[in-house]
Amino acid sequence: MPTYRLDLAYDGGGFRGWAKQPGVRTVQAVLEEALERRFGPVVTVVAGRTDAGVHARGQVVSFTSERDVEVESLARSLNKMLAPEVVVWGCRHVPDDFSARFSASYRSYRYQVLARTQPDPFLHRTTWHVRDSLDLEAMQRGAAALVGEHDFASFCRRKGRSTERRVISAEWTQDAEIIEFRITATAFCQQMVRALVAVGVEIGRGTIGAEEVPAIIAAEDRAVAWGAAPPQGLTLWEVGYPAEFS
Amino acid sequence: MPTYRLDLAYDGGGFRGWAKQPGVRTVQAVLEEALERRFGPVVTVVAGRTDAGVHARGQVVSFTSERDVEVESLARSLNKMLAPEVVVWGCRHVPDDFSARFSASYRSYRYQVLARTQPDPFLHRTTWHVRDSLDLEAMQRGAAALVGEHDFASFCRRKGRSTERRVISAEWTQDAEIIEFRITATAFCQQMVRALVAVGVEIGRGTIGAEEVPAIIAAEDRAVAWGAAPPQGLTLWEVGYPAEFS
Repeated sequence: MPTYRLDLAYDGGGFRGWAKQPGVRTVQAVLEEALERRFGPVVTVVAGRTDAGVHARGQVVSFTSERDVEVESLARSLNKMLAPEVVVWGCRHVPDDFSARFSASYRSYRYQVLARTQPDPFLHRTTWHVRDSLDLEAMQRGAAALVGEHDFASFCRRKGRSTERRVISAEWTQDAEIIEFRITATAFCQQMVRALVAVGVEIGRGTIGAEEVPAIIAAEDRAVAWGAAPPQGLTLWEVGYPAEFS
Repeated sequence: MPTYRLDLAYDGGGFRGWAKQPGVRTVQAVLEEALERRFGPVVTVVAGRTDAGVHARGQVVSFTSERDVEVESLARSLNKMLAPEVVVWGCRHVPDDFSARFSASYRSYRYQVLARTQPDPFLHRTTWHVRDSLDLEAMQRGAAALVGEHDFASFCRRKGRSTERRVISAEWTQDAEIIEFRITATAFCQQMVRALVAVGVEIGRGTIGAEEVPAIIAAEDRAVAWGAAPPQGLTLWEVGYPAEFS
């Protein structure tokens, strides 16, 4: 049976997140509804289950169907139904053993903070507006302490499952008034990036010290970290796969 | 009586333009409603009467009131009511003879075209998505022919009034997939920038030649030019005033 890979971008502002749920508008629901017109009912598998209000530029979805469909016309017809809120920018046949979720070797997220006194009418849908001046150098030291294999229970919403993850890189960058957190890990637990951003901004404000990050991780307790940064600043940027799937 | 100058940015997407009209939501209506809480009824004068869906970064508004109000607290309280859709980024006392409209020496607008095959979920509110490849060099030649004093009747929606204007500069620039039209003139007539952009894009597509621009201007007839580019790509960028008001 043919297996398909879709590469998606979406503005999460109008959705209650990725995952299908009864009675609410989610990205998975509108995508599967559009796919159903060509394939009949399909079940999609996703690389990153984004929360309500979170955006994506490089989301990856896979599904299998008995029907063999020409991928370029599929992308065009999906975009006719879904764009510009959701844009299918890639569509191809992939090997049967490809899973957008289980084949992924890493995920990268970016989080944008607008650091200035005044809000901006054109950035409020994609940034977190923070009025305080932030110490970027301290934030970078805090981010460096995240790299490696750790139990991220202090930053994970859901209990019960394993919260061990390997962070490949984590850094704060600045471009004029936009301060951006870029993090790549093998996988993330729920709200992990937004919880890390909340701690990063507190470090930038001087409320907590960068040197406290290892102790916050070691506590393995969600209560010792801070809340979660608001969703609109977060974008699933890229998902990486082994060479055999590229 | 104290005269006030406000510098505003707004996302025009949620407004039926600047000017107050019964029964619809406009920027002037929400601003005057907010000002009324501090001043009682006021009438604002605006530098650029933007159309429905058009944005502003450097809009300028003036008004006069018997009440003398501290400008920093005024800006803060206006932003509490209006931000992030409308942001008051400047607020000051000005000489009595200052008028946001009549004192202005020039206005600058920018229009953004997203030139690529795929739409973009994060740019559709602020760009016109054009799929065809565009000949930027030809567009630049067409823009150069706009500079100087001309009767722009071929690009003006409203008849009856004078449509003579002086264009100080006009150019197309490119930054990756964004092609931007930047135009500065003493003043503009209604829909003028969007009508010029529509012609510019047709030149880019090769439908009309850059060398035809002088004849289109000389016709002084709206029917010979093209329609108007969609509003969401347009932003009132800056308004200039003589040195005595700076």
